Parts: sequence; C-alpha cells; structure tokens
Amino acid sequence: MSARIGIYGYGNLGRGVESEITKNPDLQLAAIFTRRPPESLRARSGVPIVHESSAAEWENQIDVMILCGGSANDLPAQGPKLAKSFNTVDSFDTHADIPSYFKSVDASAIAGNHISIVSVGWDPGLFSLLRLYAGAIIPNGHTYTFWGKGVSQGHSSAIRGIEGVVNAVQYTVPVEDAMNRVRNGEMPELAAGEKHLRVCYVAVTENADKQRIERDIQRMPNYFADYDTTVHFVTNDELEATHGKLTHGGNVIHMGTTGDMNNQAIELSLKLDSNPEFTASILLAYARAAYRLSIKGEHGARTVFDIPPILLTRMAEKDAVRNLL
Amino acid sequence: MSARIGIYGYGNLGRGVESEITKNPDLQLAAIFTRRPPESLRARSGVPIVHESSAAEWENQIDVMILCGGSANDLPAQGPKLAKSFNTVDSFDTHADIPSYFKSVDASAIAGNHISIVSVGWDPGLFSLLRLYAGAIIPNGHTYTFWGKGVSQGHSSAIRGIEGVVNAVQYTVPVEDAMNRVRNGEMPELAAGEKHLRVCYVAVTENADKQRIERDIQRMPNYFADYDTTVHFVTNDELEATHGKLTHGGNVIHMGTTGDMNNQAIELSLKLDSNPEFTASILLAYARAAYRLSIKGEHGARTVFDIPPILLTRMAEKDAVRNLL
Repeated sequence: MSARIGIYGYGNLGRGVESEITKNPDLQLAAIFTRRPPESLRARSGVPIVHESSAAEWENQIDVMILCGGSANDLPAQGPKLAKSFNTVDSFDTHADIPSYFKSVDASAIAGNHISIVSVGWDPGLFSLLRLYAGAIIPNGHTYTFWGKGVSQGHSSAIRGIEGVVNAVQYTVPVEDAMNRVRNGEMPELAAGEKHLRVCYVAVTENADKQRIERDIQRMPNYFADYDTTVHFVTNDELEATHGKLTHGGNVIHMGTTGDMNNQAIELSLKLDSNPEFTASILLAYARAAYRLSIKGEHGARTVFDIPPILLTRMAEKDAVRNLL
Repeated sequence: MSARIGIYGYGNLGRGVESEITKNPDLQLAAIFTRRPPESLRARSGVPIVHESSAAEWENQIDVMILCGGSANDLPAQGPKLAKSFNTVDSFDTHADIPSYFKSVDASAIAGNHISIVSVGWDPGLFSLLRLYAGAIIPNGHTYTFWGKGVSQGHSSAIRGIEGVVNAVQYTVPVEDAMNRVRNGEMPELAAGEKHLRVCYVAVTENADKQRIERDIQRMPNYFADYDTTVHFVTNDELEATHGKLTHGGNVIHMGTTGDMNNQAIELSLKLDSNPEFTASILLAYARAAYRLSIKGEHGARTVFDIPPILLTRMAEKDAVRNLL
C-alpha cells in the first residue's frame, strides 16, 4: 500500500519533492498546496494544485504532508498549524530556534494525534546524525562542520536587498587549510571566519556605485562582516548562465583519540549538484518513516535522532540485513 | 545510574573495551570473562577476571555483556548461548552468515527475555548505516565500499599458516583510481581485484624458500588469488617495529542522481589508528542502547538498523537537539 503525500509550498523544495517522489514507488503524490492562485500554476506531475485555505478538506486524503516553506517566514506558523490536521515532515533549519519550534509542533501533533518529524534535511539532518553518532562513539574528541562549496540562499538574498543590486549569488567556501588542520588531528579552535570564505557574484543596475555596494556587502553584520568576503561584479546574463545551479555540500569531521593517543577520524562528505532535490529526497525518506510511525499509532514531534534507520528504506528488513549490513 | 558491563573474551577487542569504557562515565566495568586460567591474567582496570564456566553466576551483576570473541570460532556458539542469560552486544562480522546468526541469537534472547544487538562495529556497523541511509535517500544510485589502507587480521593469519612463515602483516589497500572513478560519477562496475590491492610483509624461517612462499600467498584462493598481491620479505624485528599497529579505515561512497541528471554524492570515511579500540568504542555506545532497551522491557535480537540514534549518546535528548541537531 502506498502512502499518499502532500506538498505544502511549491517553490524549489516543493518542486524537488515532486520530482524525486517518482523514485519511491511506495509513495504517491496526492496534491500540492499553495498560497498562490492555484489556477495560475500547473503541476508537472499532473496532481491537483489546491489553495492552502482548502487544505483542511484534504485531511483524510493525505497520509503525510511535506512542508516545503521557508524557515524564516513560513514554517514557524505552518508547522504547528498543520501538525493538528496532518502527519508532517519539514526542514526547519533555524538552528537556534529548533527547541522552541519542536515544542510547539509537538503540542499540536499530540493534540491532533499525528506524527511530525521536524528539521529534516542535510544540516540539520544527515550532518546532525553524524555529529551524534561520532560523538557518542568517540566521546574524547571534537566535531567540526564545514559547509560548501555551495550557494547560500540566505546570503544571496541578503545581497539582493542592497540598493542598486539586481541579482546576486553567494558561495560559501570552506577554508581548505582549516579542514586539513582538522584532518591532521591538530584539534584547532577555529572562529567562523577561519573556517569559511564568502564569494559573491553580483549584478548591479547601470551607473550603480560599485564601491559602495562592495562595502555594504562586506560590512553587513552576521552575514559577511566576520568573513573574508570577495565581491565579483558580473552581468545578469553571466550570473544566470554560470551561477544558476543551487549546488552545495560540506563536510562533518569528528577527530578524537582512544587508548594511548590513537587518532580516530570520522568524516562525512556531501557533494550536491542540487541542494533542493537532495533535501527533498531526505524529506521523502522521513515521510516514509512518519507514515510507518503513524500506522503504529505513535504521535507527537520527532527529530532524526529518534528515528530507527530501518524505517527510512522501502527495503524489507531481512533484505536490508542481508544486502546492506 | 550506571550500567554494569561485562567483557567476554580478553583479546585485542576485549582490551579495547576495557580501555575505552573509561570515556563513558555512565558505563561501569564489572568483570572480564575468559576461557584461559583467570589466575594467569591480570586486568589493567583491576576488575575481577572470571573463568567463562562461572559466567552464569554473574547473571544478576551484569547489565550488558560485550562479546569480544572472533566471528569464525567463538561467536557462533557464544552469541546464542549468552543471549539466554545476558543482554549482549557483539561484532559478528561474517557477512554471509549474519542472517542465520541473527536468527539463532534472536531465539535465545526472546527465550531469555534479553536484548542482543548483533554485528555492531564499523563494517558491519557504521558502514552499513551509511549504505542504508544513503540508499534510502538517493534510491537511484550505487553504493561502493572500499576498505583500507589497513591491516586485515584474517589475511595476515592466513599467511601465517603457510609453511616457513614466522609472522606476517597484510595491508588491504584501496585502488585510488577506482575511488576517483566512483567519485567522478562514472558508476563503474568493479570486480574485487579492481577495488583493492593486497600488500604483505612477511618474516620467514632461515633458509625458507621465498619464491615458493610468495607463490603460495599469491595463489591462495578467496584471500589473494583475485587480487594484485605484493609480497615483501622482512625480518621479524622490522615487522614488529614498523607494522605492529592495527590501523584500518575505509570509505563508503554512494553516488546517485536526482532530477535532470544532477549528481549527488555521499561519502563516509574512517581513518583509524587502532581498529580494535574503535570497534570497542562502537560496541560501548550500543551497549548503552541495549541497556536502555532492556529497561524498557524489550527483548530479542536487533541490528544497528533498528536502534534510534538518540539511544547511543549519554547526552540528554534536549541537549542533543540543542547542540547537535
């Protein structure tokens, strides 16, 4: 029996879920929910596009709703609201706010007798799992997370907010030398700006003051001020032609020691041609887990830390033991 | 409250558990069980060393028994036998026999109302987890496992069985070019001998026929015949001085595509100065999980696929969510 999946929010991530669900024969797309006028959109998959105001009518036709909105403006309200009516999976990624988000989704999911798996993706998500597994196994160690090379959508859009900027793409680039120091077992203390560089490609309006724009970017607090930030001015055509892909990736490195100073290194690395399609793929695997937990009658919020890995695969357990263990 | 741990089998792995348990304040070593005369041994940790024939007397004083015997001769009998009297964790690693081993341990654990987590380590173990997570997330892909560079104890001891050999250390070495073809997304079909080389350091008796020994090694079926195998003859002193450490490691690489041929690469890499201490560390984390499951009243056999990651860490869940997610 296949689980009926809803997509809530039809941007890059929602389109990723629509594309990747086809690789999962036990999951079936039922409908896409949007805040835009549904008649203005057409789903590549041919499923109904429904205005979000009518979502409640679909309560009995969706087994798991995958929330594809943004963490800044959409999920803080949507997550708790939808957990009352649906099993949900989301990729809420504002690290500092995860505990309070978890709490409010948990209360709704319990009230609605549903399961919600929050903060699913690669960071938070797969990277978090590596941090937990590695730290539990080698407690006498340090974990380092490096992001990139890849496009940070948050940083790109921060640049777009500057006067005179038409379009921008920002790459987060890990500092190779810092990664190698970690891999060599030096256990360095690294400030944010020692771990990553920021490289910006920016298209500006005619006659824009490039010096002022460069300065505005490099001095922007939180986003750029603490980093070695390089700004390249390019045409909008070049930006779209050369920097149009949402590539990303990163490395989690856990370095520790056992016994008589024996180094033990655990490293997870991701190289992603499409960040949204990869995140969508993870959401789909956890949607499968949410469906299975809901069938068992479980309810409340969960994180990736709570989910037994076997629930993610559509392989039968005995085949997984035979072929993967 | 700390869990009382027993070590069953006092070789390299047992000594690793004895060393690494000190990094886990919630786990407390209670006793070490051995088939040798206990009076001939002394535990570095000072705990009692008990003859295996008296293990049953310890049923109420051990919360989890960590089985540190070998997969070839010890665990097939010890695993099912001990699961009747104790919660157990083991590193049974004969891949082809895991399903039948699981079955017999499961029957004993259910009969004895205990929990047993079988085949815990890095392969099977952490590598298996990566194969499962990655394949569940990116179903349209292939997973490749490379081992080494590291000492294979099975291959080393196979060489030691050859007439005229005094001592031997065999390194399994991954073929860099094959790894890079995988990382480049070529999705190659690779035979065993295309993925790994075998490099042997061998000390022989005076007047031994080195040509015959080299040939005997290189032609040994299963172990060496299918591989590019290099044999270096060295003195026993050099062997002990230069090749005395049980280093190991490896890489699991999952390459797949999403959407319109977007490559998505997931790679886990381990670089281990001490294979036994690393395996011991993993066994300890899963001993914690076994203890927690037993307290919940669960029984039967489990694999790493069944265990929610949160059970491995001694961090409280809310701290794990705040600090690791």
